[in-house]
Amino acid sequence: MRAVEIIEKKRDGLALSAEEIQFFVEGFTRGEIPDYQAAAFLMAVYFQGMTPQETADLTMAMARSGRVLDLHDIAPVVVDKHSTGGVGDKVSLVVVPLVAAAGLPVGKMSGRGLSFTGGTIDKLESIRGIRVELTVEEFRAQLRRVGAVLCGQSAGLAPADGKFYALRDVTGTVPSIPLIAASIMSKKIAAGADAIVLDVKVGNGAFMKTLDQARALARLMVDIGGRLGRRMVAVIADMNQPLGQAVGNALEVQEAIATLRGDGPPDFREHCLVIAAHMLHLGGWAASVAEGRRLAEETLASGAAWEKFRALVAAQGGDVCQIEEPERLPRARWVREIPAPADGYLAEVRAYEVGMAAVVLGAGRARKGEPIDPAVGVIVHHKVGDAVRRGEPLFTVHANDEGRLAEAEAWLARAVRIREEPAPPLPHIYETLSKVEGG
Amino acid sequence: MRAVEIIEKKRDGLALSAEEIQFFVEGFTRGEIPDYQAAAFLMAVYFQGMTPQETADLTMAMARSGRVLDLHDIAPVVVDKHSTGGVGDKVSLVVVPLVAAAGLPVGKMSGRGLSFTGGTIDKLESIRGIRVELTVEEFRAQLRRVGAVLCGQSAGLAPADGKFYALRDVTGTVPSIPLIAASIMSKKIAAGADAIVLDVKVGNGAFMKTLDQARALARLMVDIGGRLGRRMVAVIADMNQPLGQAVGNALEVQEAIATLRGDGPPDFREHCLVIAAHMLHLGGWAASVAEGRRLAEETLASGAAWEKFRALVAAQGGDVCQIEEPERLPRARWVREIPAPADGYLAEVRAYEVGMAAVVLGAGRARKGEPIDPAVGVIVHHKVGDAVRRGEPLFTVHANDEGRLAEAEAWLARAVRIREEPAPPLPHIYETLSKVEGG
Repeated sequence: MRAVEIIEKKRDGLALSAEEIQFFVEGFTRGEIPDYQAAAFLMAVYFQGMTPQETADLTMAMARSGRVLDLHDIAPVVVDKHSTGGVGDKVSLVVVPLVAAAGLPVGKMSGRGLSFTGGTIDKLESIRGIRVELTVEEFRAQLRRVGAVLCGQSAGLAPADGKFYALRDVTGTVPSIPLIAASIMSKKIAAGADAIVLDVKVGNGAFMKTLDQARALARLMVDIGGRLGRRMVAVIADMNQPLGQAVGNALEVQEAIATLRGDGPPDFREHCLVIAAHMLHLGGWAASVAEGRRLAEETLASGAAWEKFRALVAAQGGDVCQIEEPERLPRARWVREIPAPADGYLAEVRAYEVGMAAVVLGAGRARKGEPIDPAVGVIVHHKVGDAVRRGEPLFTVHANDEGRLAEAEAWLARAVRIREEPAPPLPHIYETLSKVEGG
Repeated sequence: MRAVEIIEKKRDGLALSAEEIQFFVEGFTRGEIPDYQAAAFLMAVYFQGMTPQETADLTMAMARSGRVLDLHDIAPVVVDKHSTGGVGDKVSLVVVPLVAAAGLPVGKMSGRGLSFTGGTIDKLESIRGIRVELTVEEFRAQLRRVGAVLCGQSAGLAPADGKFYALRDVTGTVPSIPLIAASIMSKKIAAGADAIVLDVKVGNGAFMKTLDQARALARLMVDIGGRLGRRMVAVIADMNQPLGQAVGNALEVQEAIATLRGDGPPDFREHCLVIAAHMLHLGGWAASVAEGRRLAEETLASGAAWEKFRALVAAQGGDVCQIEEPERLPRARWVREIPAPADGYLAEVRAYEVGMAAVVLGAGRARKGEPIDPAVGVIVHHKVGDAVRRGEPLFTVHANDEGRLAEAEAWLARAVRIREEPAPPLPHIYETLSKVEGG
């Protein structure tokens, strides 16, 4: 088998065999197939796509390129979740302790934010002292003892994915549905998941801009998970406006804490309950999604989820005082309110522009590796459909660099559209796909 | 400007500006843009193509990546020719001395053979002692003194083309018409050509298998040459059967010598006269193609072309005795005739299969860098359309390794198709395109 022949076969639109895909992924991981052949291969995949079977084979080859965790000594069914990323998406901070508190251990490896989207690990690092880089042994020990872990992707898991992603980032091959699907699924499978709840975001503040794209990605991931014997649910959720109110790292941690304490914005709380319900059902901890939902609501109401979050933070070395008194989390020097420019109804509160305002303030990074400022961000006071009066606050901006305020405010001005006629609220979830029984 | 943005723009099917193309080619040549980004770029070009203007810009960027020769102190109009490669294509060995003997200096840089096609430089090296690697200074001095040079591509000319080609070879991006066109044209322009005659071969023994492909390549090269102010002619010539009779390095040199001495197979002689006529016309040495033809015929008949070939070989250190007595050229140990299996008419004498028989015997290389055997090859006794009788020789095989004879004979058996009804001869030239006046 020669790498160039595999590239040519894909270039010509033919489906690759499992052996060919494995040969390519293994060779690339070991450095025997050079980056330039992998780059040509990725661009050929960009144009010619992959069948679901090829994508499943690619997923397994990448998952097996490193260590594959077996966590069945800790949980009978290992459940995981993944969000494709959005603005204000702090769901993992709530659902991981929530599901764990309901009795199902959850260890989740997450990423960092890039461009207009935030990352769970960046948010968690707002808490003083918290460790997000755990060894596999630490991860296993904490999962066994606490039942909940939130940490970064372990370097030993799916190394091929990390290597492919770094190459895709500089070769224009990120936006390929099979490559996105295999990247997500390979990490989940390497981390030992039997059951995966996918939170596929769609809208201007998501990577999938249209429902068709989001549906294609969700369907493909559910399909390949099914082919690999995993129990799968994909929720296609709106990301045309930010999720919840807080956008920015410490601000989002505060909102997650409020939610875990039984408060929090209704849309965000609802989204967390939906995801947790599916996780409890898929993980075999609830006989139905409805029962999962009741169990999640009870666990939230009882304070057990909040207790579990405190235990998680403590186990990872974080300052528990800071989360018990969230006003101790990093705070910005400048807090400024942005008033509504007119009376009317909110027809748009565009997540992309709000996300970019947060990036401009320093909450996110324009390029990989840049430092971020945990304190800064935006509070979004209204949802699409709300009536607003001229002069009442639409946003509260938290800034540390006064010089960046004007640019952030310009992004926020572009985010909103107010009209005279009533505007309908945006849907929360568009579709739910599932593959619960194999085959 | 960032390389990844140029890749994405091409990936999305947009036309690149001259500045973007120059930035990419210069960055790649200097090693600032890594191979993996160039590989992704090439695959994006494979799928999205390039406009004629982009291809012209790519040609100039590659030509200017190294030294660009100015030969106007030697010839008022610098004329060059290029064949896209075929089986038995020894045209340069005849037309370079022929045109030079008619009075127009020609210095031609050529390539080596790959796969089923031969290369002029390999053929020339059948002559004992001949030097084919000349410095630019040696090239200029010989062109001035002798008027004719046949040598390898100088390393200092169009280095970007060499670097791109090496990458294309291992990334499945060789068969792209704009990349092929820019590769050919950039070398000709770097070598100082004002006027270029393209000999575009079409058929089973050429890289362009269909007339549509050959026409697309020919049109594009004529178009971009015109955009760059060059006088252009493209002849689309048949390569479904070998050109002339000899296939194999020393055998082809012998056939070229016979032709230069006024003998040689009629189809090969005719092809040389057509190419030479266009070169003399484009180079301003003849007022019309017809006059160029008359001049070429006279120069051949006078013995001046043969004299010029001897002078060229002598100037490059080759053994003139060997070409004066061609039986002294390398000879194979085994000479075997392959008889016609039946009476009838030749419907096919497939150039590809004849070329592969020669490769099997050792006349060509399956992979770059392999050594070749100058002595071996095949003599093809008949053309498509000829009547043959069972038992009369179709081919004469010249071999040094008896063990390879069976495989070579199997290729030759697959090359011919004999039928009972008369078969029409193949056309020699399908089309001639030109761009003689600018604009």
